[in-house]
Amino acid sequence: MRELGASGESLHELIRILYPINRSITGNGVRETLSILGSYVPLEIHEVPSGTQVFDWTVPLEWNVHEAWIEDPSGKRVVDFANHNLHLVSYSVPVRTKLPLSELRRHLHSIPTRPDAIPNRTSYYKEDWGFCVKDRDLREWLDGEYSVCIDTTLEAGSLTYGELFLPGKKSDEALISSHICHPALANDNLSGIVVAVALAQWLARIPDRNLSYRFLFAPGTIGAITWLARNEAHVKNILHGMVLSGVGDAGGFTYKKSRRGNAGVDRIVQHVLKNSSTNHSVVDYSPYGYDERQFCSPGFNLPVGVFSRTPFGTYPEYHTSDDNLEFVKPGSLTESAGILQEILFVMENDHTFLNLNPKCEPQLGRRGLYDQRGAGIMPMLWCLNLSDGEHSLFDIAEKAKLSFRSIETASRLLHAKGLLSKKQ
Amino acid sequence: MRELGASGESLHELIRILYPINRSITGNGVRETLSILGSYVPLEIHEVPSGTQVFDWTVPLEWNVHEAWIEDPSGKRVVDFANHNLHLVSYSVPVRTKLPLSELRRHLHSIPTRPDAIPNRTSYYKEDWGFCVKDRDLREWLDGEYSVCIDTTLEAGSLTYGELFLPGKKSDEALISSHICHPALANDNLSGIVVAVALAQWLARIPDRNLSYRFLFAPGTIGAITWLARNEAHVKNILHGMVLSGVGDAGGFTYKKSRRGNAGVDRIVQHVLKNSSTNHSVVDYSPYGYDERQFCSPGFNLPVGVFSRTPFGTYPEYHTSDDNLEFVKPGSLTESAGILQEILFVMENDHTFLNLNPKCEPQLGRRGLYDQRGAGIMPMLWCLNLSDGEHSLFDIAEKAKLSFRSIETASRLLHAKGLLSKKQ
Amino acid sequence: MRELGASGESLHELIRILYPINRSITGNGVRETLSILGSYVPLEIHEVPSGTQVFDWTVPLEWNVHEAWIEDPSGKRVVDFANHNLHLVSYSVPVRTKLPLSELRRHLHSIPTRPDAIPNRTSYYKEDWGFCVKDRDLREWLDGEYSVCIDTTLEAGSLTYGELFLPGKKSDEALISSHICHPALANDNLSGIVVAVALAQWLARIPDRNLSYRFLFAPGTIGAITWLARNEAHVKNILHGMVLSGVGDAGGFTYKKSRRGNAGVDRIVQHVLKNSSTNHSVVDYSPYGYDERQFCSPGFNLPVGVFSRTPFGTYPEYHTSDDNLEFVKPGSLTESAGILQEILFVMENDHTFLNLNPKCEPQLGRRGLYDQRGAGIMPMLWCLNLSDGEHSLFDIAEKAKLSFRSIETASRLLHAKGLLSKKQ
Repeated sequence: MRELGASGESLHELIRILYPINRSITGNGVRETLSILGSYVPLEIHEVPSGTQVFDWTVPLEWNVHEAWIEDPSGKRVVDFANHNLHLVSYSVPVRTKLPLSELRRHLHSIPTRPDAIPNRTSYYKEDWGFCVKDRDLREWLDGEYSVCIDTTLEAGSLTYGELFLPGKKSDEALISSHICHPALANDNLSGIVVAVALAQWLARIPDRNLSYRFLFAPGTIGAITWLARNEAHVKNILHGMVLSGVGDAGGFTYKKSRRGNAGVDRIVQHVLKNSSTNHSVVDYSPYGYDERQFCSPGFNLPVGVFSRTPFGTYPEYHTSDDNLEFVKPGSLTESAGILQEILFVMENDHTFLNLNPKCEPQLGRRGLYDQRGAGIMPMLWCLNLSDGEHSLFDIAEKAKLSFRSIETASRLLHAKGLLSKKQ
Repeated sequence: MRELGASGESLHELIRILYPINRSITGNGVRETLSILGSYVPLEIHEVPSGTQVFDWTVPLEWNVHEAWIEDPSGKRVVDFANHNLHLVSYSVPVRTKLPLSELRRHLHSIPTRPDAIPNRTSYYKEDWGFCVKDRDLREWLDGEYSVCIDTTLEAGSLTYGELFLPGKKSDEALISSHICHPALANDNLSGIVVAVALAQWLARIPDRNLSYRFLFAPGTIGAITWLARNEAHVKNILHGMVLSGVGDAGGFTYKKSRRGNAGVDRIVQHVLKNSSTNHSVVDYSPYGYDERQFCSPGFNLPVGVFSRTPFGTYPEYHTSDDNLEFVKPGSLTESAGILQEILFVMENDHTFLNLNPKCEPQLGRRGLYDQRGAGIMPMLWCLNLSDGEHSLFDIAEKAKLSFRSIETASRLLHAKGLLSKKQ
Repeated sequence: MRELGASGESLHELIRILYPINRSITGNGVRETLSILGSYVPLEIHEVPSGTQVFDWTVPLEWNVHEAWIEDPSGKRVVDFANHNLHLVSYSVPVRTKLPLSELRRHLHSIPTRPDAIPNRTSYYKEDWGFCVKDRDLREWLDGEYSVCIDTTLEAGSLTYGELFLPGKKSDEALISSHICHPALANDNLSGIVVAVALAQWLARIPDRNLSYRFLFAPGTIGAITWLARNEAHVKNILHGMVLSGVGDAGGFTYKKSRRGNAGVDRIVQHVLKNSSTNHSVVDYSPYGYDERQFCSPGFNLPVGVFSRTPFGTYPEYHTSDDNLEFVKPGSLTESAGILQEILFVMENDHTFLNLNPKCEPQLGRRGLYDQRGAGIMPMLWCLNLSDGEHSLFDIAEKAKLSFRSIETASRLLHAKGLLSKKQ
């Protein structure tokens, strides 16, 4: 296994490697991506055949691209998939034709207000084809007959996803899910993918994990649905979950709560963000977005929120070629990874203790615990006062308005002196 | 049955017809009023004999007026009930006497700060008599002997109220109650009466009502108490209720919550007011006001709020001759009726559905439901996400912070496509 | 029994009597203090032998002082316990020695930023000795050999506390606790002690008490722990409790809530403070402070808050010789006593009634209760509306946003007219 490290540069380097690969909801680009991730963490790769029924959906035909381009009346190649994989509408059917510009326009997508950006378009569940071009280029195209070549295959194959399970003492697990279906879009979602890999490596090194951890690298929507359909019996183990996406841009953090609204993950992420010095905002659940839509559908209602920086759809670079290698910042990636580690630290260490001297305070002085006067004594007093079996360490931190770290440290001191016992 | 229509002018026209009739808590004026209302809606008229015990109260003697006036020492008639029915204190006992102005004054009521207004006074439960006059007139009265004639009858008769029941599929009912005991006061409460009639006609035209609806036109306090005493066994059917009063003035809306504070009607009225572009305020329940005092007494605690415009007692025209035909505005009446229709629309259409594909999202695209991108798709996604049997359409609208109308429309589309079923 | 009275001057006079006595957590100064209090109220004095185990603690040896001083190289007595009892670190062990100033300094305590104040220091649970001096004096001390005399005894004896129980009709009791371990500190806590005595005298005069009342005068921490250990079986009777301390300074009131956060005492104190015209603030429970730490430990979790004026530790005079007879104001003492009487009035009179005519309003007019129009009628209407067995008078006052006094008065009128009955 290769070591990724947590530096922003190493995370950014992995994004650079993955950026040129053509991903979609199926196909060899997804396999190649997962194969590279598999050199860092021991991913289990799943192939689910086209046509498999998954709840209300069907796994689609597998899509692969050999080449795709348009030549203008003079024979000049004016757009070529080989130059940028956003040029081809994802899931375009094979086409070999000539047609006048006036008819071709229906198949051309550009953004007049951002003339130098190539948009990202897909047509997964409706047979169609098209090209995405810079509006500034399109303005130069002259009338006449254009040659179109789309050499793609849409054939029975499979949908591919990767999964990593890190077992712990408890079967309760924390799920981290990142969609892998986007081609050359760096923030959405190569940023989420590489930060997830870094977190997985970090957790794998923890010797005696309390919780189990599961990482999912699957195409958006159909991938999450497929995973849920195949793992329905086990999702009850999911104690906490987060969808990671858009964690590399320079903006502040945004946490979108789970449908439950007050799940452990919702409270923990808010606590960690509040105790960090970062700009951040927290928004309520709504049924539009990423794969939380599936995890939080009413038949599952899992405690899964969304962790991102600037919310998707609200920045102009979103879903265009401007979401590129410059748009994601090494410093943002490493800051995101750091906040997420702190969140996972809380999840991993949130035990419930019982005060073994619940009637009046224990005499801290004769145990050498009272010299830490002032601020130092408060986390211990809170731990003792609220370790009544009804409050976990995280509950105590929230009530005390102190950081989880300070409460957790105090609990270790008190436990070492025999004043607290772990609640079974 | 005559057609009232919903136009402000037609509502105002009915107020003009009812305005000159002398109403009180009993008597022929009440009967005449109900008879006119009965030409618009099939009212059931109830006569409850004087002396009937209703909880802690007794139905009083019936009061009727033949004439009432005062003549000054020169024989000039200085006040005459024939000119304005507010001139006589309601429930004045018969009197035929002469007495000096100094003694008469104890029986005269005026408002020094509003010298051109005749106040409205009653003495329902204490034997007394009196006249109400403009303070400006009173200032001109000279000392001397005045002749007083009050030719009224206070005899065993009955208390009269009208009731309209519109049955629906469910026995759950919405109650609309308007007091009819006030004489020439236009806003309080001819406005409430005529808007109630308009709502009743509108509901009567709905072919296949889901809820049942009950309209009550009864004298204040004793009428509501009498109705409750006679209908104690059925009030459990009241799912929602509103007292309508003062809905014709030019001010913003005021909703006073039921004693429960978070009853369906409380939440629905607030939702509709918030989604309207009107000025409005919402106030907590307090045990002073109109007939909500009886409906919300602790032995009943019914979900009945008060819907009005400017709160009673807070406008200077209140309970004076200035609460007249000019004080109520056609536009205000029709706006009130419109908001109330929207409230009743929510009550009528607030079903609970079950998402038939609760595990992951259903594939909207292949059902032709996904083209409505952007705002259009959100109500459908909310409906699907929250139709878990725990949320009615209204609950969903509240959580989604969308209008009930948009959620209700989405539910029809989804239901038509077989994605939702009505919860039994 | 002597009469204390409630005037600020008489309260201040008792503080002046108690001020010179040397108190600590044990010893003859505590006995002398309790003996003086016992001349005002029939205190029961408890002596608990040294060595008694009380939960995690042990009652310490008894400490008494005969003399303590330091002489400088010239033989001049530069500090003498006889001049101010704060000069000696409480629980100093016996010492008779000569040592150079450089070595003596480790045993000297002063406050450079408040050069004219003698600090208050203790060493209860760690064998040590020391003197507290004004920093301005200390600056004058010259190098050389100093003679130190600490003639104290630390011997098996007992811990002394006083208790007063005033029985009422109910076994439910309100507890008032004031720590008595501080020597010449006037606000902390002679103020709490004398106000408690005034309250006890006032309650003792109430002929037919509803609740029982218990006053505790015990040394801080170890005294409260000892009392709890000896009364564990009875603390379930504590319905309300307050720690009184620092109620004589010129600042606003501060109430610190019990650990429960919404106990009766928490709500009542906030209500009374809000209805007073005083400056005040309310703070959440935290496990640091006075004896609420013991009462609110998780094994007891009693409904005990802290009533004080300026919070301890936040005023510069705190725990120094500047917390003296001038620092506590007669007017503040009497104002504190007044607010506390109002709090106790609510506790004593908070009954739950049942409306005997719960269906519709009773006819107040024929019972002569309706003439009090306007504001006068509202407390009665609220009482009737909410006396459903679920709301006590205090609950009603809170919901009505009216003073408890007005609701309590209304309940007496309604009870006298047979409209309310006391809930059993």
